[in-house]
Amino acid sequence: MANSQKKQKILEVAARLFRDKGYPATSMRHLADEVQLKASSLYNHIGSKEEILQTICFDNAHRFAKEMKGIQENSTLDVTEKVKALIQLHIEMATQEITSVTAFNDEWRHLSEPHLSNFMKMRKEYEGAFKALLQKGMEEGTFKQKNASILLYTLLSSFRWLYDWYKPGKSIQIQQIKDEMIDSLMNGIS
Amino acid sequence: MANSQKKQKILEVAARLFRDKGYPATSMRHLADEVQLKASSLYNHIGSKEEILQTICFDNAHRFAKEMKGIQENSTLDVTEKVKALIQLHIEMATQEITSVTAFNDEWRHLSEPHLSNFMKMRKEYEGAFKALLQKGMEEGTFKQKNASILLYTLLSSFRWLYDWYKPGKSIQIQQIKDEMIDSLMNGIS
Repeated sequence: MANSQKKQKILEVAARLFRDKGYPATSMRHLADEVQLKASSLYNHIGSKEEILQTICFDNAHRFAKEMKGIQENSTLDVTEKVKALIQLHIEMATQEITSVTAFNDEWRHLSEPHLSNFMKMRKEYEGAFKALLQKGMEEGTFKQKNASILLYTLLSSFRWLYDWYKPGKSIQIQQIKDEMIDSLMNGIS
Repeated sequence: MANSQKKQKILEVAARLFRDKGYPATSMRHLADEVQLKASSLYNHIGSKEEILQTICFDNAHRFAKEMKGIQENSTLDVTEKVKALIQLHIEMATQEITSVTAFNDEWRHLSEPHLSNFMKMRKEYEGAFKALLQKGMEEGTFKQKNASILLYTLLSSFRWLYDWYKPGKSIQIQQIKDEMIDSLMNGIS
């Protein structure tokens, strides 16, 4: 494996350990065992447990920010299509960028300052942009709900099961998850 | 406070500590501080940290099982009304029975055997009953989705933000949360 692939593998295994055992209870020794490296070799790839957490949190935050910007600026999409694109983005991140679990499963709370504040600022900006889009849909009468916060958090929450449940190779295809979730969230179930 | 009220308060504070710090990192000493009791007085109410976890998990599991049974057996409700009643139940539990966070935030994973297996069995039965209801709605054409698992987990996930976010006294009323969430989950947003 090339070094960049090895590093990616380390980040993914770390994210899974953080999810299953919690960040405080995960040791570098345990991580080394899981990726089958000696602790000394692990440190060739990564400086510390906190550096892993920072890398994971900010890689994901920048990815979400970039995708949001692309969707916001895409003038060929109406507000419904923009919300659909964001639902797709969250399903893709949950099923393909498995480190993104750390940003959703609250392990980011263990970041030290100033990283914690920076991460929370990016998170707030992302949620603000998503909420503004829902608000716009409500104002123009496309969406019929009244409270953009309730709708935002209901949507963002609805993806969380994917982090516990989805494993590559599951018999359900990602495309089917996208189709069914977009349909139930946009059009309801009844 | 009567003893039963004190015990309820201890369970609620413990559930909040488990959520914020994780079960392994929560000590009985810390719990005693938070409920303003001496450790020795705390043990008059509760035998051990594990006993707290067991009480919380099984009180909630029995409550959900009982409510599910009532809804299943209520022949005046059609399948849509039954699903609405379950959505209401989850919102009520998240906003009023705050210990239920422990059953949703995965802290139940720290139960010892045979309690862990018993809890997982009750959880599986509850999810199975909920899924059967969704399946029935799909078969009779009331719900248009095809995959009951995706729909079940999307619904169950969608309540999780309430545990992080809802605090009594928030300016949003529980009735508004119910109205908006039932509307968006049953009828969609667009």
